[in-house]
Amino acid sequence: MKHLIFLAVGMLMFANTFAQQALWGGETIVSPEIHENNTVTFRIRAPKAVKVEVVGDFLESPGVAQLKEGENGVWEYTTPKPLASELYSYAFFVDDLRMNDPANMLINRDVSTVSNIFIVPGDPGDLYSVNNIPHGTVAHRWYDSPTLKEQRRITIYTPPGYENNEQKYPVFYLLHGSGGDEEAWITLGRTVQIMDNLIAQGKAKPMIVVMPNGHTQNVAAVGASSRNYRPAMGGGPREAVASMEDSFGDIIKFVEGNYRVKKDKENRAIAGLSMGGMHSAAISAQYPKTFNYIGVFSAPPIASMMARSESERSKYAEEFVKKLELQQKNGFKLYWIACGDTDFLYQGVKDSLKKMDEIGFNYTYRESGEGHIWKNWRIYLSEFVPMLFK
Amino acid sequence: MKHLIFLAVGMLMFANTFAQQALWGGETIVSPEIHENNTVTFRIRAPKAVKVEVVGDFLESPGVAQLKEGENGVWEYTTPKPLASELYSYAFFVDDLRMNDPANMLINRDVSTVSNIFIVPGDPGDLYSVNNIPHGTVAHRWYDSPTLKEQRRITIYTPPGYENNEQKYPVFYLLHGSGGDEEAWITLGRTVQIMDNLIAQGKAKPMIVVMPNGHTQNVAAVGASSRNYRPAMGGGPREAVASMEDSFGDIIKFVEGNYRVKKDKENRAIAGLSMGGMHSAAISAQYPKTFNYIGVFSAPPIASMMARSESERSKYAEEFVKKLELQQKNGFKLYWIACGDTDFLYQGVKDSLKKMDEIGFNYTYRESGEGHIWKNWRIYLSEFVPMLFK
Repeated sequence: MKHLIFLAVGMLMFANTFAQQALWGGETIVSPEIHENNTVTFRIRAPKAVKVEVVGDFLESPGVAQLKEGENGVWEYTTPKPLASELYSYAFFVDDLRMNDPANMLINRDVSTVSNIFIVPGDPGDLYSVNNIPHGTVAHRWYDSPTLKEQRRITIYTPPGYENNEQKYPVFYLLHGSGGDEEAWITLGRTVQIMDNLIAQGKAKPMIVVMPNGHTQNVAAVGASSRNYRPAMGGGPREAVASMEDSFGDIIKFVEGNYRVKKDKENRAIAGLSMGGMHSAAISAQYPKTFNYIGVFSAPPIASMMARSESERSKYAEEFVKKLELQQKNGFKLYWIACGDTDFLYQGVKDSLKKMDEIGFNYTYRESGEGHIWKNWRIYLSEFVPMLFK
Repeated sequence: MKHLIFLAVGMLMFANTFAQQALWGGETIVSPEIHENNTVTFRIRAPKAVKVEVVGDFLESPGVAQLKEGENGVWEYTTPKPLASELYSYAFFVDDLRMNDPANMLINRDVSTVSNIFIVPGDPGDLYSVNNIPHGTVAHRWYDSPTLKEQRRITIYTPPGYENNEQKYPVFYLLHGSGGDEEAWITLGRTVQIMDNLIAQGKAKPMIVVMPNGHTQNVAAVGASSRNYRPAMGGGPREAVASMEDSFGDIIKFVEGNYRVKKDKENRAIAGLSMGGMHSAAISAQYPKTFNYIGVFSAPPIASMMARSESERSKYAEEFVKKLELQQKNGFKLYWIACGDTDFLYQGVKDSLKKMDEIGFNYTYRESGEGHIWKNWRIYLSEFVPMLFK
């Protein structure tokens, strides 16, 4: 009640401004509405539209559903069946024009496309949700990379309680894929929610999660970079001075110089998805006696990102197998490889496993359904983290 | 060149998924395009549209411009005149349906509306831009509020170098308005860029900027809160246990217990916009000998947010004037009040100034053009910060 008066004042505040138009011309309808039985209704007011569709990963292939027009130009679609618990992405197509849901403020950027998201509760949806539990801190920092001769942006998760004790923590380096940047794992990957929840449930040890930008041709995500660029798969605004692998020592040095961490192999993990998985394999091989836990998600561990011919690829694989033999000799606790059975890299992963079997390399393989998608990467993260530092 | 191969792999990665549709069905046209003479072109591909408009604060009233259809269904509008340097917000209306620009990933949420933004370079646009200078850290943390009996989210800016010296810093508490939350000042307000730039230019002292959530009926911004709610002006998902004023001591205690800060009046500033301006006036009066610098942006310092009648308002004002007299007696260095001359609260501000004059209260008044808009709040912030801690 006591807020009502100020609310009225607040509404007045935006009269006759663009803000007013933006704020009060907005939607009042509810979309998406997640019903108690986990069916979901999508709504959009589009009185002049001839056709309204919704696309998203909640639909079976071919992945398009038609909305029907009801009263006042509000189009609607309800899923015929309850949806499995998950974080889903979607967008509307209004007369073939893609647009976001004006009624839903929850959005994610994937490379250069912005989509809406929603979470159907349950397992694993609850693990990706903000719950009323202790929360860790997320910091957007800049570290100095002498190798790349620049300051670079990095995302750091510190667990609940980090700031209020003298304890030293293990460190988990978590790397994004070719389409990502230092924000991908905390937005699309829900890393903050997953870590907070796993720690609160006692399933994961409190740890620091370090999420750098793996494109050394750029310094930061779009919007946070002084270089004006448009995100692209694998692209960047210039040539890189050095590779992610060769400059990774700068990141370890920064973390161990700036955080209260345990500085030994037993307390370092590295994992990544796709390009970040290849990075994790390459970096853990290149920095001997550095990582005890290695995770390679949806990527072949033995694969060159730079080879331009079959002979270059063979040469790289031959040399990398030798590095793996040394890595095994040096010892590690877990080398975890995960891939979906419809992933376009599935065969590449299988080829790597075969080579690893030939040298008796001690990996663990986890095969899931589906392909090269964030749903799988959230699952892999949720499974990998509880195995760390134990 | 060496990235081309992985780029091709990356493109393959998303075949036949929703992600593919999202990523590669996206726009390749450039919008907005800021030309060298600071005219700006907006473009959107909408082959089936009958009418396409752009709205935004870069336009004079009535604030709508028509795009014209060109080749391949790409609609276009170029501003007839160069735009003054500024950060602008805009959206398209396609056949009267509001949508964001699919070619522009830079977006801001204001209350419950998402808009695109762009910056025209110059003064002040460059001050709002990410430049190649040392960057501070932005941390999203949770602090304990015994008064509100909960953990609450807070945004903390620490200046470049904070992590690498033993120096103690002054603290600036910066409060949002009725439509905002703990993210408003760093998104719409460009506080991080403004602070980085002012510090790099030697115009501001390095300081810690603390941006709490001023709605005590909620704990965090939408998407970061465990309470499922839709942002609304002045609204929240439940009744508050206590007011922002009464619980503000928890914030000071958290900051001074967790950061390397100077803990005296000379090194504390507080400012806010609209509701946050009223908070700043009320809090600096309620906590005696605590703040040396007070900023009230676009709000009357003497105004009750809770009064429900004229007599309640008078009584509040009478009591508040007494508090101001005490505050002046206790001493402060700067009491800075700023307002736009078309602000709907302009007369209220003038009434407060009159009351302050009557008691010989030592304020500084800054009047700008225009009204209750973020453009003004960014200007006020840019002017207020250089006056602090000197």
